[in-house]
Amino acid sequence: MKHFFYPRSVAVIGVSEKESNLARNIVKNCLEFGFKGDIFGVGKKAGRILGIPIFTSIESLPQGIDLAVILTPAETIAGIMTELGKIGVQWIIIETGGFSEFDPRRQKLEAEILKVARRYNQRLIGPNCLGVINMETGLCTPFAPYRRDMRTGGVSIISQSGGMGRTFFSILESEGIGLNKFVSVGNKLDVGEAELLRYFLADSATGIVFLYLEDLREGRDFLAAAYNSDKPILVYKANRGRMGSSIALSHTKALATDDHVVEAALDEAGTIRIRKTYELGKALKAFHMPALKGPNLIVISRSGGHAVVAADACEMEGLCLPPLASELKGKLKKHLRANVIRLQNPLDMGDVYDFDVFLMAIEEALEQESIHGVLFVLVYPEFVNAQHVRRMIPYLEQFMRRYQKPIAATFISSPGELKKLREEFSLPIFSSSEEAVEALAISYHHHRLKKIRKVVSTGFQVYPSSHIEETLKKPSRRQRNLLLHESLEVLVINGFPVAPYKFVQNVTQAVNFARDFGFPVVLKMVSREILHKSKHDGVRLDINTFSGIRRAFLEMKRKMVDQGLEDQEWGLVIQKMVPAGQEVILGARRDPNFGPVVVFGLGGIFAEVFKDVAIRLAPLDELRAREMIKQVKSIPAFTGTDKKGRVDFKLIEECLLKVSDLIMTQEKIAELDINPLILYPHGGHIVDARIILR
Amino acid sequence: MKHFFYPRSVAVIGVSEKESNLARNIVKNCLEFGFKGDIFGVGKKAGRILGIPIFTSIESLPQGIDLAVILTPAETIAGIMTELGKIGVQWIIIETGGFSEFDPRRQKLEAEILKVARRYNQRLIGPNCLGVINMETGLCTPFAPYRRDMRTGGVSIISQSGGMGRTFFSILESEGIGLNKFVSVGNKLDVGEAELLRYFLADSATGIVFLYLEDLREGRDFLAAAYNSDKPILVYKANRGRMGSSIALSHTKALATDDHVVEAALDEAGTIRIRKTYELGKALKAFHMPALKGPNLIVISRSGGHAVVAADACEMEGLCLPPLASELKGKLKKHLRANVIRLQNPLDMGDVYDFDVFLMAIEEALEQESIHGVLFVLVYPEFVNAQHVRRMIPYLEQFMRRYQKPIAATFISSPGELKKLREEFSLPIFSSSEEAVEALAISYHHHRLKKIRKVVSTGFQVYPSSHIEETLKKPSRRQRNLLLHESLEVLVINGFPVAPYKFVQNVTQAVNFARDFGFPVVLKMVSREILHKSKHDGVRLDINTFSGIRRAFLEMKRKMVDQGLEDQEWGLVIQKMVPAGQEVILGARRDPNFGPVVVFGLGGIFAEVFKDVAIRLAPLDELRAREMIKQVKSIPAFTGTDKKGRVDFKLIEECLLKVSDLIMTQEKIAELDINPLILYPHGGHIVDARIILR
Repeated sequence: MKHFFYPRSVAVIGVSEKESNLARNIVKNCLEFGFKGDIFGVGKKAGRILGIPIFTSIESLPQGIDLAVILTPAETIAGIMTELGKIGVQWIIIETGGFSEFDPRRQKLEAEILKVARRYNQRLIGPNCLGVINMETGLCTPFAPYRRDMRTGGVSIISQSGGMGRTFFSILESEGIGLNKFVSVGNKLDVGEAELLRYFLADSATGIVFLYLEDLREGRDFLAAAYNSDKPILVYKANRGRMGSSIALSHTKALATDDHVVEAALDEAGTIRIRKTYELGKALKAFHMPALKGPNLIVISRSGGHAVVAADACEMEGLCLPPLASELKGKLKKHLRANVIRLQNPLDMGDVYDFDVFLMAIEEALEQESIHGVLFVLVYPEFVNAQHVRRMIPYLEQFMRRYQKPIAATFISSPGELKKLREEFSLPIFSSSEEAVEALAISYHHHRLKKIRKVVSTGFQVYPSSHIEETLKKPSRRQRNLLLHESLEVLVINGFPVAPYKFVQNVTQAVNFARDFGFPVVLKMVSREILHKSKHDGVRLDINTFSGIRRAFLEMKRKMVDQGLEDQEWGLVIQKMVPAGQEVILGARRDPNFGPVVVFGLGGIFAEVFKDVAIRLAPLDELRAREMIKQVKSIPAFTGTDKKGRVDFKLIEECLLKVSDLIMTQEKIAELDINPLILYPHGGHIVDARIILR
Repeated sequence: MKHFFYPRSVAVIGVSEKESNLARNIVKNCLEFGFKGDIFGVGKKAGRILGIPIFTSIESLPQGIDLAVILTPAETIAGIMTELGKIGVQWIIIETGGFSEFDPRRQKLEAEILKVARRYNQRLIGPNCLGVINMETGLCTPFAPYRRDMRTGGVSIISQSGGMGRTFFSILESEGIGLNKFVSVGNKLDVGEAELLRYFLADSATGIVFLYLEDLREGRDFLAAAYNSDKPILVYKANRGRMGSSIALSHTKALATDDHVVEAALDEAGTIRIRKTYELGKALKAFHMPALKGPNLIVISRSGGHAVVAADACEMEGLCLPPLASELKGKLKKHLRANVIRLQNPLDMGDVYDFDVFLMAIEEALEQESIHGVLFVLVYPEFVNAQHVRRMIPYLEQFMRRYQKPIAATFISSPGELKKLREEFSLPIFSSSEEAVEALAISYHHHRLKKIRKVVSTGFQVYPSSHIEETLKKPSRRQRNLLLHESLEVLVINGFPVAPYKFVQNVTQAVNFARDFGFPVVLKMVSREILHKSKHDGVRLDINTFSGIRRAFLEMKRKMVDQGLEDQEWGLVIQKMVPAGQEVILGARRDPNFGPVVVFGLGGIFAEVFKDVAIRLAPLDELRAREMIKQVKSIPAFTGTDKKGRVDFKLIEECLLKVSDLIMTQEKIAELDINPLILYPHGGHIVDARIILR
């Protein structure tokens, strides 16, 4: 991977002397960015561009070229790669567009390219990308012209879109944050985000990784890389559009839409999600300070208004402004004219014009063990205080190093002044107290999450599953999903608490069931046809007599005949009607990128209107199962001693673990939906379930 | 009010030749801003500052001074105002701080000042403020130094904090938006936000008003001013901290905390709420374009990534990207190389480098009747395209005028380039597609809200209320809130559907009630002591026999004696136990700033966990009552034909109107809580209520 970022020599293929030639921008950019290695051009006509020779064939290139950048028509690329392979070039960036992103039929071209790459052991970035920028070496391969406006620093970026790069660079430039490396991955034919992430996490020059992704194909691989990283990983996932969830067959699928799964997965891996590009600067600044290791802040402001706004923002973001300790008050009193300043948090220093007093107050605050960070808001006219501020900043930087606590410096002055400060210093500078508080909150919540994630390891038990596989065989062979009684059977085999039931095809069987299990009972239609419908009126509740069973059985059978539901696998499930209780739903599905996920919630209005469900990647362990239960906001409402009573939480936990095991061990199961599990103070019953095969 | 903003002459009181003197900044600012009127200084020592003479007494000032700006110690101000009164100065800005905002005991000083003002017919801005900036006349009274960095434009600002001013000016400057007037109102001793808002709404130079408020004292007055305005009114309400809602006696109070009421009120008046200072620029830009009069956008982007991000943002903000009409496709095809560009919305023009083609596509899109606006995202390197963009912008401005539809121009380039563009042009320029989409959404939702608000007029019926007053008399005289049966009685008088009940003090009365109304019945303890408790275990449900009544009565009486609840007003309410149904809660309370508000929701977990309640200012009309019902997200879950069946919406509506009438007509009622109203498909029953007096 290193040769993509630190090549000693680069060949740019597709250049010409013409002004309109795009590939010449690649050469131009490398020169503009100060690339120190050798550059060679390859084009149809010999000549020179910007002092670089143009070769007319690849074989005439000197030996030992590390990296080739190709910008020639799509059809020509496989051939060029073959020639490159022959002279031993193994690292290739293909910038040409017009592949599968434009027309799915062009996948053939991509397959051809991959074949060549395999033959010559070549690794590819692209196609349809801008390639690599490395601020350290001056490598800059985009085919659009770039200027070296950003400073060099520790942020490395993986972007699926080239165009978004300018947005990110513009944010870095205006915040005064330094870029380390940038890679535009395009169609990700070979090298993808997971591999690049792993490279950046190991790269000593990279301190923070930011990813812009439109899809996340190797989800698990990506997470594995992210999971144990100590470097902050920021992710902007675009393409969030809702799936047509109304057409989904199971609840689980409708609730766990792609974006919800991405959310759960990125959270599981301890990454920071960026939701708007304009919030990137704030998040990056958060990680250019020591972490906020607890929620307690002291706000020191020179304007009452900003103090109020900061306090509001703290409340909203879950940070605290504890009252000033009397020890701190005593120290402040010595320095402040306490008859004008009220010693409270937020501390409004309105009438103080002495910058040394600000510094003293900040340091005293940081010295308090129970205080985890300081928000300092300074409103000032630059033409009066510019020099004071410049004298102050090195102290703020020094304090942060010494106390290993963040000082979010918020300077309210003219835009020009802030621009100058950001050019002169590397201190992160905030321009509103809300932005500063939000950055501190990002830091705090990330620090907390990382700590939680560290104590937990993921594992799962494997159940003996041969019996289940037997149950899955028939439906799988007949290419249909499981009928109700088959789904319930899978659950029974796995030790789920299923309410007693039996699949029956005549009245006698049904009556015998009631004789064994007693009344009341429920009858439910079973048919292949019904499988395809998400809602059907095929249930009779609360049957209390044998004659009632007979009547219901015959009626339902007639109905099935009338509606054409009486195929060869028709029948009824007779089930013991269990007492009412608190209903919950649980399920699992396979996400195309992240694999198995488990879903849990109260169902009904809570799931559908309030989206109050917990989603996590399988496998679950006990801690994660318990976290899921806690995460559902509507749950505490029935944990108290109110009229509904407690429910058996242990049972939910066990069922969640069993669901997780099922989806992890049974390759054939695509979706599993338990709806509802009826809960009591002790125990509970599953009365309906649906299993969909791949 | 005009003399505050357009004075011909200003006296600045409190100046001296000393460098550290703050009042001299007022003179300096007026000169810096180019104030054309006369300026006079008043101070202890004669002299000159910046060429302006310092008078040593007020009586020596020339006649006919329009405005005085005072910055002298708090104790001296009443005296100075008296002298000003004598020479006929009626418009006064008091900038001095250290009044009630610092120490409540200093309210005495404020009262004195107000007395003088009444005597001499003086109007005051302040104290504890920075006064006025008027970009048109160059009046600039803050005592901190300012530079004229903002351009002159149509935005006028009312700010309760002086310090926040620099934040707003910095936003205006960096967005290239022009300021018209700024007023810092401080403690609002005399002139408040409502009066200033009215002045700005009538002021022809002001196009948009922005308010920063930490409290909103004259809530109704403010709303009345805002209600019929055609100018956009943007409000940032700080000080949003939650009230200690756990100590509130009634549900209504706990649910309708101050910030929820402010929210409801500002929405009712059709204002735009700003939640983060850093979002002000976006909102201001929204109103520097023609309104987005419908949800349909076409996104035209030169980068695929930005198109994806814009589409996500549209979905999130409730805007639509309809497929391109075939007519439009035909027109675009003529101009575009359709084999490279896919004709879809968002339209990714990746490979087009011809700026005339962009303009053509934008104009064709605007010409479509079903399209309400365009989002144009242009990623460009300034050193290549700066001139193209400058040639393009006047066309965009012209298109907006011609079609009266917004074009949100999003330019992704270096920060320096955007700064230059904003200085050169008055076109609002966005720097990310999310920001642009959010601005368009603000415009659209505001346009829609204003249209809805226009067709509705507010009014309320007054019920004959002498009988209610009678009921309220006893509790009011005894300085307690209403006992359960008294609360129910008020509801009965007002025609609410209360379940049959009777207040009883012996077994015979209770038994007789059951003889009249039948079983089952409920018994509830009544006592003054219980009034003060929010929860008490004083209810027996589901009593089905006369002996059951006797037993329960005696048990409950004994319990009351044991717990010391048996005061002189003790007793029990016996009530018909009504069938289960869908429970809802409704209520009303008086907000200190906005007066009566009505609250409605499903209660329980929906209100407490999901905050799913509707809050509106009283009085309600039918439309508003219906809107409230619609606003509760959990309501639709039981309007369908599912097992819970329909509920009587008409009855909810009637009850809401009655609640509104009660709180509007009964001055003595502070809070009213109906919990629950049990609803059936037809009709319903109130079984519990609580009325709290002022």
